[in-house]
Amino acid sequence: MMKLIPPRRKAKVHLAPKASTRQIVGAIGEQAMIQRLVCALQERGDVVVGPGDDCAVVRPAANARYDYLLKSDPVVEGVHFTRTTLDAAVGHKALGRVLSDIAAMGGEPLWALVNLVVPSAMPVARVMGVYAGLRKLARRWRVAIVGGDVTRGPRLEAHVFGVGRVPRGQAILRSGARLGDYLFVTGALGGSRRGKHLAFQPRLAEGRWLQGRGRATAMIDLSDGLATDLRHLIKQSRVGAELVLSKIPLAPAIRKSALRRTALRHAFCDGEDYELLFTVAPANAAALIRAWPEKFRTPCAYIGRITGHRDIIECVDARGQRTRMKAAGYEHFR
Amino acid sequence: MMKLIPPRRKAKVHLAPKASTRQIVGAIGEQAMIQRLVCALQERGDVVVGPGDDCAVVRPAANARYDYLLKSDPVVEGVHFTRTTLDAAVGHKALGRVLSDIAAMGGEPLWALVNLVVPSAMPVARVMGVYAGLRKLARRWRVAIVGGDVTRGPRLEAHVFGVGRVPRGQAILRSGARLGDYLFVTGALGGSRRGKHLAFQPRLAEGRWLQGRGRATAMIDLSDGLATDLRHLIKQSRVGAELVLSKIPLAPAIRKSALRRTALRHAFCDGEDYELLFTVAPANAAALIRAWPEKFRTPCAYIGRITGHRDIIECVDARGQRTRMKAAGYEHFR
Repeated sequence: MMKLIPPRRKAKVHLAPKASTRQIVGAIGEQAMIQRLVCALQERGDVVVGPGDDCAVVRPAANARYDYLLKSDPVVEGVHFTRTTLDAAVGHKALGRVLSDIAAMGGEPLWALVNLVVPSAMPVARVMGVYAGLRKLARRWRVAIVGGDVTRGPRLEAHVFGVGRVPRGQAILRSGARLGDYLFVTGALGGSRRGKHLAFQPRLAEGRWLQGRGRATAMIDLSDGLATDLRHLIKQSRVGAELVLSKIPLAPAIRKSALRRTALRHAFCDGEDYELLFTVAPANAAALIRAWPEKFRTPCAYIGRITGHRDIIECVDARGQRTRMKAAGYEHFR
Repeated sequence: MMKLIPPRRKAKVHLAPKASTRQIVGAIGEQAMIQRLVCALQERGDVVVGPGDDCAVVRPAANARYDYLLKSDPVVEGVHFTRTTLDAAVGHKALGRVLSDIAAMGGEPLWALVNLVVPSAMPVARVMGVYAGLRKLARRWRVAIVGGDVTRGPRLEAHVFGVGRVPRGQAILRSGARLGDYLFVTGALGGSRRGKHLAFQPRLAEGRWLQGRGRATAMIDLSDGLATDLRHLIKQSRVGAELVLSKIPLAPAIRKSALRRTALRHAFCDGEDYELLFTVAPANAAALIRAWPEKFRTPCAYIGRITGHRDIIECVDARGQRTRMKAAGYEHFR
């Protein structure tokens, strides 16, 4: 377990960029757009972690028993699902994405609100079906849907806002990885477009255990792909990472690929795995490996180590050869 | 100040409707769609007020000092603003709508998250401008924007999720009005489409005072128009209301109307006034009328009384004649 790091005030107050006024959003990409928006936001003393981690962390009172986790995430037709996606799968994914982020902080989900955007000509039955999927997942994790809104718009969208909690000061951040820590990942990676991106189970039980007995030092959920999300983790921890390629757990959907290289590319870049990537101090790694299969049916694999080569991901192949990984991963707008 | 009323469990668990599968959302309207979705939601003991009031109210612990208010609201291009609406006004309205709902519970806003949906071809400068409007209003009320998301979509949208707080058990609900209570409204009503719907100031200071010293018994913010919102208030309070037509404060934009009847129709039905409609027990009304102008520049007008004629709004004209008001007010989808 790691201590919470206060927001880096200086880094946040960089000035708005000198962008040409004609520059369009599609040209800079989603991540850059978010970066530009979150600069110079109002800060409050009760904000422990602002934008940039899986969830925001707020502390209602200095002596409160729990910190609260806040997260919002959208699913939009044509981006996160299609016109033919089953109703319930849309709702499942909408809430599941938020729960996955709460899991990645080691949190317990509590309440959610849902804004739906719905074309006027959409059958009422589809909207009911979306909500049924949402409600089923909510029930499973005892999340209360306490509000929201329905408004008309050109395409179906669901924006879910979730609140969770974690014992005070105990949220697992992206920034807690230390030199020598072991890297683990739950489940199997790649090929999510063939179904898993709609049907994943948020790793809430695993996340909470990793926050407590499991003693994870840093954690992130895999939404953009191992390549991109590991990069977020090492960047915020100011470290590097070394991946053992033979240890990367490949999803059945991609294991059939003729070339192992192709399969690995899927595992690194497909995104939407909604698995947990986390680090554990060397002293606790053996205990974790022993305890895991007794606690969970979800597999958990050791995939590498944290290094001191800041911002660098190295891959070690079966012959022991090292290559440096280039930036990659799914990004909206591009 | 009133006690919190536990959610009416029975009333909520009505069954899903026997709608034809071909029925479309546009045919039943937004309110009916919301009604159908919020039935049979997962409940938790820590949810004091679920869907159906201005905000949800949750209680983290039985002995907590504060209850927390949760609210989400969208603004969508073509529904809540147009392509030519100034950037900052879009952001102002997006956050302002949520703050207005927190005001209507007597709450203090704390944190917000913002999901933007943005066409790829939209200039970066427009998105930055929207956020600037949002940030300015956030700064004014010391709200920290702690997260959110940017995703691509066909039209500009902003979905704001806000969290506020109120002393435990002290949220002002829609359901607290009692027979004989005086009805008040802040500001002036009608004609919001001529600008106010984009530039309103959420009545946060007024709302908090009404929750404390002002001793409001029930409160709602005017988003759908006095006619519709007063109907919500009396329905949830299980009472009726009597409006004194000569007392309805008319906005300058509509006061010029040739016919007073036309002006009143605007005041009742235009919607998006974002003023507070509230009730006060007879014993406290005189004190409120005295104290108000010393505290606030926003006007506050006595406009009628709460009656025992459940679900009925009666209007009393200058000659003392009574007429019953029919259901009216702005609703999306129609």
